[in-house]
Amino acid sequence: MNTVPVAVAVDVMGGDIGLDTTLPACASFLSAQPLAALRLVGDQARIEQWLQQHAASASGLKLALNAGRVSLVHAEQVVEMDEAPAAALRSKRRSSMRLAIEAVRDGEASACVSAGNTGALMAISRFVLKMLDGIDRPAIATYLPTRQGATLMLDLGANVDCEPQHLLQFGIMGSALYSVQMNEPRPTVGLLNIGEELLKGNETVRQAAELLRASSLNFYGNVEGTDLYAGTTHVVVCDGFVGNVALKTSEGLATMISAFIREEFTRSWASKLAGVAAMAVLKRFKHRVDHRRYNGACLVGLRGVVVKSHGSADALAFESALQRAYDAARYGLVERIASGLPKVTTPLANTAAQA
Amino acid sequence: MNTVPVAVAVDVMGGDIGLDTTLPACASFLSAQPLAALRLVGDQARIEQWLQQHAASASGLKLALNAGRVSLVHAEQVVEMDEAPAAALRSKRRSSMRLAIEAVRDGEASACVSAGNTGALMAISRFVLKMLDGIDRPAIATYLPTRQGATLMLDLGANVDCEPQHLLQFGIMGSALYSVQMNEPRPTVGLLNIGEELLKGNETVRQAAELLRASSLNFYGNVEGTDLYAGTTHVVVCDGFVGNVALKTSEGLATMISAFIREEFTRSWASKLAGVAAMAVLKRFKHRVDHRRYNGACLVGLRGVVVKSHGSADALAFESALQRAYDAARYGLVERIASGLPKVTTPLANTAAQA
Repeated sequence: MNTVPVAVAVDVMGGDIGLDTTLPACASFLSAQPLAALRLVGDQARIEQWLQQHAASASGLKLALNAGRVSLVHAEQVVEMDEAPAAALRSKRRSSMRLAIEAVRDGEASACVSAGNTGALMAISRFVLKMLDGIDRPAIATYLPTRQGATLMLDLGANVDCEPQHLLQFGIMGSALYSVQMNEPRPTVGLLNIGEELLKGNETVRQAAELLRASSLNFYGNVEGTDLYAGTTHVVVCDGFVGNVALKTSEGLATMISAFIREEFTRSWASKLAGVAAMAVLKRFKHRVDHRRYNGACLVGLRGVVVKSHGSADALAFESALQRAYDAARYGLVERIASGLPKVTTPLANTAAQA
Repeated sequence: MNTVPVAVAVDVMGGDIGLDTTLPACASFLSAQPLAALRLVGDQARIEQWLQQHAASASGLKLALNAGRVSLVHAEQVVEMDEAPAAALRSKRRSSMRLAIEAVRDGEASACVSAGNTGALMAISRFVLKMLDGIDRPAIATYLPTRQGATLMLDLGANVDCEPQHLLQFGIMGSALYSVQMNEPRPTVGLLNIGEELLKGNETVRQAAELLRASSLNFYGNVEGTDLYAGTTHVVVCDGFVGNVALKTSEGLATMISAFIREEFTRSWASKLAGVAAMAVLKRFKHRVDHRRYNGACLVGLRGVVVKSHGSADALAFESALQRAYDAARYGLVERIASGLPKVTTPLANTAAQA
């Protein structure tokens, strides 16, 4: 896999913005990663039109096309952002999302990226790529910024009624993902729980802790919500319902704080002046918590690398997602997860299959 | 209840700091609320020593003592912050926490406040005060700041394996609490769920939505994590595990953002200067998100008002908790919850009792 360039298939039509976001991100990614290749999947006429209309910014993409580093795959259909996953799976067989995923299945790409409909991406990925043995359903994993590096949290909503062995699987998959994307040989894994002072979590979490402790993972033990942004562990595993709420609550709080800061710095002439004085500092602060740098959630547990970009991602954010997919593919995420699974879960494989 | 002054029993020994926090807060509360009375429960010798040593700040308290607005109740024991709830319940029958709760049971106070051990407070409150008919266990409710007012969230960790009827009960209790503390006759109630794009939440939440919709509450429908700080609804109900994670995650994120802002404004001479220029603005911002103003979680579902202050609360924060308790008592929280319960939950009371 290291001798041929690692290719990433890109659903260039997906997301709220489409080509104006995805194509500039692809151009920037290619110049940052000279060994990478891209497979752009979408409406060929519209892609070519875009390349003509944006001659300056598209020059790198055109050169790469001519050099064979970039290939175009025509897709007549687009999965809509609000389309029901089952409907998209059934009726959008020629969609850019579907063809990008099929490129991974067929070995034409090592990973794929889409900013489209999450439910559809999950359903189609699962159908086309299939799950790894012993995994029931993909989990969604994303990074959160912390005071020291980043924490990978999973699941974020794909699995809402988890059994203890699912939380163990999240630990195995999260550990593999963190190690390939962050170059950390033995990431620490925390199990999200609630404070010691109250009841010690629910029964599922208690049993999951035992499984994680008995596994070969670098299990840290229980962590609380406060630990997510403290960077206590590299990986935090939790039920998809809890993870989704934690992530969305964070987004809401960050939005409120930004709005408050903006309001306070524009309240009067004096505060506007203070804002000008503080501009450089505020910009650096903003950069540190810039969620765009953390864009690119990974769907793990599949027989292939699938990365979901935020639907409203801009070019910088979409490029982060491309980078995540590229790293996961070139450092062998799927193989690492697969090799971690049987070793650790053999005693549980039957239980999981029966459940 | 409006003819005699409403008295609040205060566990003055609880929390990480104790008298140096609780007594100044009591003094400030009394001057802000001329109709309120306080019952200070703790080590009498130490309280009197404190009053002597802090002559200036204690003058108001002493006057109130002489006028009979404040009474002292001696308690030999203190519940430790890390003590197991069951042990505290068994062996701390003369603790300040226990006697403060018993004052409510015996009608000597209309509410009690403690900054002590949450688990012990819950266990002792439940044992001493008993639950309202149809409620199995107290829920913990707290306010979050939002862009417009505050959102009341419950449960925060007392109930980790909830059935649909528990979520309905949270709605009834939260609605009553919001209405008495925020003077809002028909608060909107949201049910915390995850995004539409994935699976539509788990089975418990789906069933709870039906119960809430069929109730007489002002049910808004499902909300997501982002809605907590957007102030979409007045009240948000969720499983205690999820609520605890959402709250602790928020605390962690807020701490990280504060640390980043501080670091960026002290990084160089230029940024320190900018910090000085922006000081007034940053202070106003800090005030808006000041968690101390939101201190005072209510334990609801009991036959009495019990408010839990954060263990590390300072005097301003502890005073907020006193105010919450006072409002809940004088506007008849328990009666409102009780009157809401049978009407709405009669068809479920048997189910809940069987479960």
